[in-house]
Parts: sequence; C-alpha cells; structure tokens
Amino acid sequence: MARIVVVTPNPAIDVTYEVAKVTVGETHRVLGIAKRPGGKGINVARGLHALGHETVSVLPLGGDSGSWLRQAMAELGMATAVAEIAGETRTTVAVTDGSSHPTLFSEPGPLLSAAEWSSVTERLREHLVGAAMLVVSGSLPPGADAGVVAEWIGEAHRVGVPVLVDATGAALRAAAIAGADVVKPNLLELLESTGVATLEEGARALHSLGAELVVVSLGSDGLYAMREAGSSRVEAIPGVTGNPTGAGDAAAAGLVSGLVEGRPLEECLRRAAALGAAAVLRPVAGEVDLDAFHRFLEYHPTDGVES
Amino acid sequence: MARIVVVTPNPAIDVTYEVAKVTVGETHRVLGIAKRPGGKGINVARGLHALGHETVSVLPLGGDSGSWLRQAMAELGMATAVAEIAGETRTTVAVTDGSSHPTLFSEPGPLLSAAEWSSVTERLREHLVGAAMLVVSGSLPPGADAGVVAEWIGEAHRVGVPVLVDATGAALRAAAIAGADVVKPNLLELLESTGVATLEEGARALHSLGAELVVVSLGSDGLYAMREAGSSRVEAIPGVTGNPTGAGDAAAAGLVSGLVEGRPLEECLRRAAALGAAAVLRPVAGEVDLDAFHRFLEYHPTDGVES
Repeated sequence: MARIVVVTPNPAIDVTYEVAKVTVGETHRVLGIAKRPGGKGINVARGLHALGHETVSVLPLGGDSGSWLRQAMAELGMATAVAEIAGETRTTVAVTDGSSHPTLFSEPGPLLSAAEWSSVTERLREHLVGAAMLVVSGSLPPGADAGVVAEWIGEAHRVGVPVLVDATGAALRAAAIAGADVVKPNLLELLESTGVATLEEGARALHSLGAELVVVSLGSDGLYAMREAGSSRVEAIPGVTGNPTGAGDAAAAGLVSGLVEGRPLEECLRRAAALGAAAVLRPVAGEVDLDAFHRFLEYHPTDGVES
Repeated sequence: MARIVVVTPNPAIDVTYEVAKVTVGETHRVLGIAKRPGGKGINVARGLHALGHETVSVLPLGGDSGSWLRQAMAELGMATAVAEIAGETRTTVAVTDGSSHPTLFSEPGPLLSAAEWSSVTERLREHLVGAAMLVVSGSLPPGADAGVVAEWIGEAHRVGVPVLVDATGAALRAAAIAGADVVKPNLLELLESTGVATLEEGARALHSLGAELVVVSLGSDGLYAMREAGSSRVEAIPGVTGNPTGAGDAAAAGLVSGLVEGRPLEECLRRAAALGAAAVLRPVAGEVDLDAFHRFLEYHPTDGVES
C-alpha cells in the first residue's frame, strides 16, 4: 500500500500519572507512570500503522523531549520526518485515580520561527510525491498562522495527493477554504469553528467554504458525513466502554484507511466507527484492539439494533 | 572557604505549571512553565552557593532528564559529581493557580542497582578529603537501604569530615545511630521518625540514638536545637510571607554555613532562620533573597518581639 503522510504540527510527550486520589492543594505520590508519543496526528498514524498502512509522520521536534519522542517513534517501528526546532517539544500530564475523567495539564508547545515552519513544509514536500494521502491532525502550536495548513494542502494538491484535515477554529476554516478533500472535526469543534447551532448547519458551512467531504465524529452517536451527493450516517458500536481519549483519532485513522483503499463512503465510515470503538477498549490513547476492530467491522446496526 | 559536599540521593526536575484554576477531572491549559533542578540536597547546595560557599553536589543521574539536570546545574555555576545510572531521573510537577497551596505530583524516582549505589559512594569519596562538611539531604529513591546513609557517614568520619543529615524515617534513624554530627528534620519528620509526641522527646530520642546535635525546623515557630550541653531556640523572622517550599532547605544551608565557619550554635541557628525567611520571599524553591538575608541577620527577637 502507498504511504500516508501524517503531519502533527504540535506533537507532545503524553505522560500519565496514576495516583490514589486527586485532591487540589495536596501532595500526591505518583504510583505509576506511563510515557508515550502523543498529539492527535501521532495517534492517527499509530492507528494506520496498526492496520498495516505505511506512514511517515512529519514532526517539528526540539530539546530533550523531542529526542525522546523521536526515539520512541523508532521503537514503535514508525517512520518519521523530523524538522528540528530550537524550542522544547511539549509535554501533557494526565493524572488518573480510577474515577471517570483524568485531570489533564496541557503545555502550549514551543513557538516556531518562520524558518522552522519552512523546514516542516520542506520535510512534508520530500515525502508527498506518490503518497496515497496527506493527513494534518491536531492543534497548531501557539503563534502559528492557520495559513500554513492551506499551504500544505496546496503542496499536496500540486502533486495530486488528497488531504484530510482534523483541526479546529481558524485552521479548520482555512483547510475548508483551501479545498481540503476531507475535514474531520468532532461535533464540538465543528460548532465552535463555524459558529452555528446544529450538526447539519455546521457541516454545510464547511462544505460551502470548500471542503469536499465533511465527516463529523459524534462519540457514542457515531459518525455523520456530508458531501455534494448528500449526507449519511453510521451508528457507533454499542456497549463499548473504556477510555475515550484518542478514539476520535482512531476513527480518523479508520476513515483514512478506507479512503486510501478506495472503498465506498459508507464502508469508510463503518471502518472509522469500528476502529474508534477498538481504541476505547485500550486504556492507552493511540493503541487499538485489532481483534475487536475486525469483530466490530461485522456489526451492521440495520440488522437489528435500533439507534 | 573549604568545599561542602552535598549528596542528593533522589534528585528531581521540579516543573511548575501555572494554570487559571485547578479543578479535578478537567483539562487545563498550562499558562506558564518553570523547570529547575530540584530535590532537597540541591536546594541546600543552592543556598550555600548563594552565600559564597564552594559546593560539590553528588548526584545519581540518568536518562534525558538526568542530562537536563546536569546541564542546568552547570548553568547555575554549581559543581557536580555525577554517578550515572540506567534509570530515568524523576520529575515533580507542581500546579499553581494563585491559591495558597500548589497541587503537587511527585514521581518516586528510579531504582538504583548495588553497583550504582557503589558508584554514588565512590563519587562522594573522591570529594570528601579536605571537605569542610558532608551534607546528605532528601529522600532515598524507592527500594534503597537506609544503611547507605550510615555508610556515607562512616566514609566522612574516616577522613575527619563532619556530617549533617536532613532525612526522615529509617534514613534519619540510621543517621543518628551512625553518629551523624547534626541531624535536621522538620517537626513532622521528627515525630514520624521517632514515634513520640513532642518536640523535646523526639530530639532527645535522636540524640540518644547517637546524633550529636539535633536541629528541628519549626516553620513560623523558628528553630529548636538539642545537644549534650542542653537545648536552645531561635524565633523565626516575623511577618515574612511568600512561598514556604524549600525554606527548610535554605534554613539547613544557613545552619551549615555557620557550622563550617565555626560560629557559636546560636549564631548558626540565627543564620538558618534568616536564610529560611530569605527563601520564603522568593517565588521559586532553591532561590534566596540575599539582601533580605543580611537584613534578617540583624534581627534580634530578644530586643523586643515576644514569642
């Protein structure tokens, strides 16, 4: 299969601390520590890698944490194209105590100079020719111009590579205006980025701006898609509980996997729903339960489950 | 002045996150990040360094965070004697939102092999001859045998170097039994380590075990000291508010500064109280306000302040 180029503009080391109970103003002994490559694009690439796709992750990385992340990607067997930057790659700290929601502290990420942005685009350009798709996923670091996303879309289209963008706010609007082949926000991101009140209006707004296909992940309500030919919807896999962090990124990976194989849209959406659910079963964001994914692919809600 | 050797058995990178408001189960945007060498011994060494003493910090360091810490000490102009270890040097994360107490997450630290412990002792031995004092300060990493503190005291005494230990629990008791010249717990550590109910009983217990001088830091109640010749006390500098984190370590540095200069005990204790207060004035643990220190040294509570 042809390679998929995935840009993560603001990668992170995701650190998870396990403690007995989180209490504001107290000192907590950390009982367990997990540390892994993070950032939405990296999660998408991991999902694609798990499905057997060849990926190249384009990453601006800097400092000791950048070195760690580069090494960790290599240990996962995942190719990277690194733009070295002067700033230190950010860290996110998630504190869990067994209750439902982790307490999360998210560093903003380093500022990139104009030359460093050019270096990211250069790495991208080196891997675009012959790629099956370009995926741009996750937040831009502070101070970044959303126009960089439009620039990347232009680079990809120049060499005939379709683009999927999973972003929010100005970057999402810029992607639609630049004619992204697919945009994939979640519902909250869609409504915040378009300023409208409903799923359908939001999807129509992005489509009108220029996005060819708009796919919106709705969590336990499945996925919704809108394109020129009309809209469609797939249900989420029912009865799946676990860790929803990263499930939207796994859904994006499932969607991309179907799109690059040229499958019909509904099959792509079902693949997205199945891989998203397979991620929920894993306690660690970025990982998917492949056996469950294949079981979930067989699930057809119209066969008997009401939505 | 002769150099002071400071062992920090479990050094850390202290990371401080500034957020708008800490709320359990929520996602927080980190608005400001500070990162500095941490661990009690390093704070003591910084206090001594600020007073113009020559210090050598003996540190087991490993991984990217170990490299960072080594570099950061060099940038502070502070000499280190590093025992390289396979494990990763720990991090502590303090989250502040302007309310009185930070929310702190403290990693336990790496396990050291027997060979790595020998390497720490070897680094220590290389710098002991001719030193004015050995200071051992802070927790031992998980799985460490408190006997290592007794071993270090033996090494120092063999070459005629007095030892101050600021530790807790088994390590504090081991230090007293091994004949530490000075032990300096805070009140809570003293009571927990000796299992008694009062300051005087606790100090007497450590003295009976073999510690020559017991100094207990009492926060806003000043310092208490007990030795063969009897007990004494100095008041804290009144009206000082700010960040108490690291104030006990600054007090230890003030005490050591007086002891190595051969000052009378009461002057040493006043120096401890003054440097502790000078640390409270600084928002960052490990730093001291030297101008305030010199002003505070002039303060004599017996001239008019009641305790």
